[in-house]
Amino acid sequence: MASNNSESKDVRHKIVLTRDLGPDVMGLLRDREENYLELVLWDKEEPCNRDWILKNAPGASALIVLITDKIDTEILDAAGPKLLVVSTMSVGYEHLPMKELAKRGIKVGYTPDVLTDAVADITIMLALMAGRNARETMNIVNEGKWPEYNWAPFLFCGRQLSTSASSRKRTAGFIGFGRIAQATLSRLIPFGFTDCIYTSSPSSKPTPTRDAQLAQTLGLRSVRRVNLGTLAEESDAVFVLAPGGEATLNLVDEQFLRKMKKTAVLVNTSRGTLVDSDALAKALREQWIWGAGLDVVKGEPGISADHPLVKEQRCAILPHIGSATYETRVEMGTLAVQNALAAIFEKPMPAAFDLTGYQ
Amino acid sequence: MASNNSESKDVRHKIVLTRDLGPDVMGLLRDREENYLELVLWDKEEPCNRDWILKNAPGASALIVLITDKIDTEILDAAGPKLLVVSTMSVGYEHLPMKELAKRGIKVGYTPDVLTDAVADITIMLALMAGRNARETMNIVNEGKWPEYNWAPFLFCGRQLSTSASSRKRTAGFIGFGRIAQATLSRLIPFGFTDCIYTSSPSSKPTPTRDAQLAQTLGLRSVRRVNLGTLAEESDAVFVLAPGGEATLNLVDEQFLRKMKKTAVLVNTSRGTLVDSDALAKALREQWIWGAGLDVVKGEPGISADHPLVKEQRCAILPHIGSATYETRVEMGTLAVQNALAAIFEKPMPAAFDLTGYQ
Repeated sequence: MASNNSESKDVRHKIVLTRDLGPDVMGLLRDREENYLELVLWDKEEPCNRDWILKNAPGASALIVLITDKIDTEILDAAGPKLLVVSTMSVGYEHLPMKELAKRGIKVGYTPDVLTDAVADITIMLALMAGRNARETMNIVNEGKWPEYNWAPFLFCGRQLSTSASSRKRTAGFIGFGRIAQATLSRLIPFGFTDCIYTSSPSSKPTPTRDAQLAQTLGLRSVRRVNLGTLAEESDAVFVLAPGGEATLNLVDEQFLRKMKKTAVLVNTSRGTLVDSDALAKALREQWIWGAGLDVVKGEPGISADHPLVKEQRCAILPHIGSATYETRVEMGTLAVQNALAAIFEKPMPAAFDLTGYQ
Repeated sequence: MASNNSESKDVRHKIVLTRDLGPDVMGLLRDREENYLELVLWDKEEPCNRDWILKNAPGASALIVLITDKIDTEILDAAGPKLLVVSTMSVGYEHLPMKELAKRGIKVGYTPDVLTDAVADITIMLALMAGRNARETMNIVNEGKWPEYNWAPFLFCGRQLSTSASSRKRTAGFIGFGRIAQATLSRLIPFGFTDCIYTSSPSSKPTPTRDAQLAQTLGLRSVRRVNLGTLAEESDAVFVLAPGGEATLNLVDEQFLRKMKKTAVLVNTSRGTLVDSDALAKALREQWIWGAGLDVVKGEPGISADHPLVKEQRCAILPHIGSATYETRVEMGTLAVQNALAAIFEKPMPAAFDLTGYQ
C-alpha cells in the first residue's frame, strides 16, 4: 500500500456503522481495521437505535448509515469536529441534513447508479404483471381454484406488452427520463416497442440531438419530450421514474389517469408520492386503464390489507424491493464503505454527493 | 371476389364451430355466410358438448375446434365424406386423431407462431418473478403485513436477472430451442446475458453455423448445444420450452435439479409433463435452486391448494396463460378460420399441419 500520512498507525480513524453489511462488505473494513480503523458497529437485526448513535458518534471520522437512520444536527454535534464524512447506503438522502453538512464542510457519500439494473429489471417485471393479470391469476392457483376454470378463447386474457401481427406499434412513456428510465427502455426494445415519449423537470433543457441519437441507436421511430397530457394519451405503458418531493407530488392524478388508454398499464418504481392512490384505485375499479404495477405506495410501509390499492386485483404491489438483490445491495454497501474510506484517507470519493446547491 | 367453382352460390359449405370466437374473428365468417357458408355455432360459455358435435357434424365441410374438444373417429364418421378440414385454434394437437385424419385425406389446420411473442413475454415475466421473490413479497403486501417489516440491507433480497458490476456473466439455458426459446433469448439480451446453451431432440442435427451466426447477431459470447447435465450446471436461468409427450416426460427431475446452481431459477412455459413436480417442490424446499416460475403444471387444471408446488412460496404459478392476450387469441382465432376457409375454397392454407409423418 502506498504510504500516506493519514494512514499511519498513529492515527486510527473511528468509523461508526449503523448496520452489519454482511461479510462481503464488512471484509473491506476488517482488512484495514487492525492498523488504521476503529470499527463501532450496531450488530442487531432491527434498525439502529438513535441513542446508540448519539452515544457512539463522539470522535468518529465517518458515519456509515442507512436510509432508516435520521441524521440531524444533534448527531453531528455529538460526533464533533473529527467528523469528515457521512456515507449513506442509499440513493435517497431525505434522512440527511444537507444544509448543515454543507455548512460544516462534512462530505456526503451516497450510492447512485449501482441500483439502476435491479430497478429496471423490476420495472419490466411489473409492466408484464400489470398487463397479464398476474396477481389475479396467481391467486386463482394459490387458492386452489384453477380446477373451477374451463379453457375458453378469452379466459384470463390480458394485454400484450409485445407488439403482434395485428398490433404493430407500442409507445413507452416515461415520467422522468434518467438512468433507470433509459435502462428500462433498452429492455423494452426486443418486445417490439416502436416509440418513446417522456417528460422532464420543467427547468431542464431540451435535448433533441441526444433524443435523435438515442432513437437511432435503439432502432425506435422516435424519442420525444412531451407534456404530461400527451404522455398519458399516447403511452401503452407509463413508467413513473422521477424523484419524489413536493415538485412531483400526485403528478399521476385523476386527470392524468382519465387520459390514459383503456389498454395501458401504469408502473411506479420510484416514489409513492408521485401517484394519487385514491385516483389510481378508482381508475382500476372503473377500468379507465388496464392494470398497475407498483413497487412503492404513498405512506409505505403503513399499507394495510384494506388499503384501496391492495383491494384492486388489477394492482400488483411489491414492498419496495426495486434494489433488493444480493448483487446490488452488496455493491451499494461496498460503495458506501469506499466513499467513507476515500473521504477519511483524502482520496477522491467514488460517489460524493454534490453539496454545492446547499451552501 | 375472383370467381371460383367452389364459391358458387349453389354450394354452401357447412362449418361447425365449437365456440364463439368473438366479434373480430366471427366477422370473417359472417361476411361470407349469406352466400357461401352455413355456420353452426356452439354459443355457450362452457366447453362444447360432445353430443352436440356428433349431432351437428353430419355434412360439415369444416370443423373449427379448440384444444378442449376431443376429436375422434366417431366424430369423423358422423361428419361424413364432405369433411375437408379440421382446424384447431391451438398450437397443440393432442386432441386430434392425426393418423385417422391422414388416412382419410382430411386436412388439418393449427396456429403455430402467432403465440410466440405472448409466451416469450410471460417467460421473461416468470424468470423475473422467480428471481425476485415476487409471490412471497406480493403476498406480504396483500395480507397487510408490510408494516411489520423494517428496512434492512438484505431484506427481501432476490437474485438479479441482469448482470451487475460484480456479476458480469449470465447464461441462459434452454431445454428445446425453437421459436419461443429464441424470442425469449432476444428479450434477455438487454439484461446483459452473455451466453446461451440449449438441448435439442437427440434426433435433430447439430447446427453450429446457425449457432455461431445467432451469437454474432445477438452479441453473445457463445450459443452452444450441450447435454442436459451441462445445461443444468451452467445456467443461471433454465427455460423449459420443448414439446410434451413421452419423449420429454420428467426431463427436469431430481438429478437435474441437484445439478443446478443454488442461485438459478427454473421457468416452465411449455408443458407440465416435462417437470417432475415432487422433485421441484423438494428442490425449492431444500433450496437446491433459488426459485421457479411455472405457467404449466403436470395434471393441470386439477391443482389444489395443497399441491406440493402451490405450497412453496418460491414457486410462482400461473394457470396456463402463456398465450392469453387479446391480441394473440384473436390472431389464433383468425388463423383457425383462415385455415378452414382456405381448405374449403381450395386455396393454400396459411398454417397447414404436415401429416406426412402420420401416413
